[in-house]
Amino acid sequence: MAETVKYLLDESRLPKTWYNLAADLPKPLPPVLHPGTGQPIGPGDLAPLFPMALIMQEVSTEREIEIPEPVREVYRQWRPSPLFRARRLEKALQTPAKIYYKYEGVSPAGSHKPNTAVAQAFYNKQEGVKKLSTETGAGQWGSALAFAGALFGLDVQVFMVKVSYDQKPYRRALMETYGARCIASPSNQTQSGKAILAQRADHPGSLGIAISEAVEVAAQSDDTKYSLGSVLNHVLLHQTVVGQEAMAQLEMAGDYPDMIVGCTGGGSNFAGIAFPFLGAQLRGGKKVRIVAVEPAACPSLTRGKYAYDFGDTGHLTPLVKMHTLGSTFTPPGFHAGGLRYHGMAPMVSHIKELGLIDAVSYHQIQCFEAGVRFARAEGIVPAPEANHAVKGAIDEALKCKAEGKTRTILFNLCGHGHFDMQAYTDYFAGKLTDQSYDESELAMALAGLPSVAEPA
Amino acid sequence: MAETVKYLLDESRLPKTWYNLAADLPKPLPPVLHPGTGQPIGPGDLAPLFPMALIMQEVSTEREIEIPEPVREVYRQWRPSPLFRARRLEKALQTPAKIYYKYEGVSPAGSHKPNTAVAQAFYNKQEGVKKLSTETGAGQWGSALAFAGALFGLDVQVFMVKVSYDQKPYRRALMETYGARCIASPSNQTQSGKAILAQRADHPGSLGIAISEAVEVAAQSDDTKYSLGSVLNHVLLHQTVVGQEAMAQLEMAGDYPDMIVGCTGGGSNFAGIAFPFLGAQLRGGKKVRIVAVEPAACPSLTRGKYAYDFGDTGHLTPLVKMHTLGSTFTPPGFHAGGLRYHGMAPMVSHIKELGLIDAVSYHQIQCFEAGVRFARAEGIVPAPEANHAVKGAIDEALKCKAEGKTRTILFNLCGHGHFDMQAYTDYFAGKLTDQSYDESELAMALAGLPSVAEPA
Repeated sequence: MAETVKYLLDESRLPKTWYNLAADLPKPLPPVLHPGTGQPIGPGDLAPLFPMALIMQEVSTEREIEIPEPVREVYRQWRPSPLFRARRLEKALQTPAKIYYKYEGVSPAGSHKPNTAVAQAFYNKQEGVKKLSTETGAGQWGSALAFAGALFGLDVQVFMVKVSYDQKPYRRALMETYGARCIASPSNQTQSGKAILAQRADHPGSLGIAISEAVEVAAQSDDTKYSLGSVLNHVLLHQTVVGQEAMAQLEMAGDYPDMIVGCTGGGSNFAGIAFPFLGAQLRGGKKVRIVAVEPAACPSLTRGKYAYDFGDTGHLTPLVKMHTLGSTFTPPGFHAGGLRYHGMAPMVSHIKELGLIDAVSYHQIQCFEAGVRFARAEGIVPAPEANHAVKGAIDEALKCKAEGKTRTILFNLCGHGHFDMQAYTDYFAGKLTDQSYDESELAMALAGLPSVAEPA
Repeated sequence: MAETVKYLLDESRLPKTWYNLAADLPKPLPPVLHPGTGQPIGPGDLAPLFPMALIMQEVSTEREIEIPEPVREVYRQWRPSPLFRARRLEKALQTPAKIYYKYEGVSPAGSHKPNTAVAQAFYNKQEGVKKLSTETGAGQWGSALAFAGALFGLDVQVFMVKVSYDQKPYRRALMETYGARCIASPSNQTQSGKAILAQRADHPGSLGIAISEAVEVAAQSDDTKYSLGSVLNHVLLHQTVVGQEAMAQLEMAGDYPDMIVGCTGGGSNFAGIAFPFLGAQLRGGKKVRIVAVEPAACPSLTRGKYAYDFGDTGHLTPLVKMHTLGSTFTPPGFHAGGLRYHGMAPMVSHIKELGLIDAVSYHQIQCFEAGVRFARAEGIVPAPEANHAVKGAIDEALKCKAEGKTRTILFNLCGHGHFDMQAYTDYFAGKLTDQSYDESELAMALAGLPSVAEPA
């Protein structure tokens, strides 16, 4: 039997800084705009929502940003996370490719999300904040922030998309075990929620609506701030511990990736694994092919428009330039709830426009096929989101086989599927379907994009 | 905030041998008896059920038994597992005690069970076996053997106690993801199952019945062997990697336990953490207080009789001397399904009789209270079984606080609770109850013990 090889870094190798891609971009990011004036916003505009330390990270162009020691102390519970060479999978695929995966499911909440949740909780605590409000889709982010809140003594209130709240009671139980409060969204606790419920009492909710509710709660209270689990620059920044560690671990293995694969919903786990390598490339290092894998039912990078849009359905957020399907777009139901967002991180969108990364999309059934294949070889059951990365990596490995080429593939296994077994049950029972989005709804959502242009 | 400290061993420190307590026992284990003759059985009697390598381990008195390299290769995917100093929990309890926990939830199947599942799959494969049959209660063992079977190319058939099969569909989904077949027990696929169903068509099943079914399947087929996840000497043996690693990790920490706490169902995770320390004590090392924590609703060590009994309800197994509640005893329903077994490992029972360990029992609600307290401090949600060990450790730490004593407590956190969130949901909803077993049923079950005495 082939041996799955684990590369573990000593704790002394835990990164001391986060890596900021903004420092190495060939062209700066378009500014964030005020929806009323169409003009760039300043740090003060964001102060009701975020602590100043995070706002400064959001706009920073420093290459290295120090990770506070209390954050590193928490990271050390599960970091550096393992990098595996998937030799059992390679053997099962009979591929000459070398497949490595970074495994973020070892965190207490089971995904990469605590990398930023812990940092956000720390900075909020430091600035005297008492409560955090946030949204969650499938529940990975909500659990991560609940975990971080428990450690730093912050009250956490999570607006969970109603359909997930009903379908995934165990994610809710996990958040409550950590002491957080979980509310089905749309709720009658906010104006945004009430407005939606007035239109349709049984509305299933969406990430865009839940964001509106969480933002509203934070904006209206002095001791409450808002916390977002993906999309924003500072969130992507915090995830770069993943790629930095992977780089050191591949060095241990005497290897370097020819390509990197990550799944993309809001873009944070993808950025976490890819940005440190992309930065090295932009500073003159080896070129790496970077592939973002997204769901065919919510294909912001491959089918969205690169334009200014709101981050939420209630239009409470500033405008950011990103690949978007339109803030009113509602994707059909599928199991990777963490990938059901209408937009893409501005920084990931920007490098896509610059031609620095590729994007592909897959339907869910083929992703579950890949995930089961992976589980039987490697023993780890991936989250439905992560199955997209697994599928992307397996397809690349099979291309290597067809071409007789030995390439090194690195992918991010961003979380385990322990709270998603209903999806696997449905898959085995033949109950999964591959739904496409409604083309006319997409056209309508795109037609409704705000008419704001990038300032000259 | 206090820092949770992780002690990681380099892979080169992965044990090369399992530790066999039989070598250091002051008095040998009573023999296993043939139920027909009342005489000790020989290795040949067990050959229909187990590969010869495991039978020889079952009766070995060698102190160190080499771990085959292919087993170590698989172990290395997650071993050596981390040892944590629970400083955040210590702080929450305001105790002067030092609390360490060994965390076995990092295995792909989420518990300590793969330590033996992988070894058993290896030896069966080596001796040409094609299929393994087994039973599972809550599903931890079934998932572990399904995982190991997938790696070694063995078909795995799991008889899952009906009530768990219905209540825990996600454990079943996990086994199926690994490629195993999962059957509700009692089933109509065996004579044992049919006999039970004839008496009561809606029988909820029990571990004892499921064992009978799995044993029957193995006994009747040439290419199928039986696999057990606890109780037997060779299973306890395989778990000693846990305690051996913990010993090396505590050495890194410059510490040694004053007491060791483990939960006991069949006894294997308890043996895994405790036996290497007990062996050191028996060879003249430091005395350690060792505490077995069992459920008050199924209290074999604290309320059972030390006597010869069958391992299963259908009376297909040999007779072993153990603490038993009687093979017909059915405990009331509670969430730690892995602790709902009528007997206790003969070796654990033996050292209890020799006065080398203590045993206590707790009801489930207080264990869940302890588990939630642990989760909020340490971030890890324990399995309901592991909550018993957490409760035992917290109580000892609070005793230290009351007495103003600094003692070092080591416990085994044998698995995570990701597949047990219904139990937490019930706990938060106030739906958990503490049921006691029926005293008259216990009396009847004990009265029905086989009348066999230990040969002189």
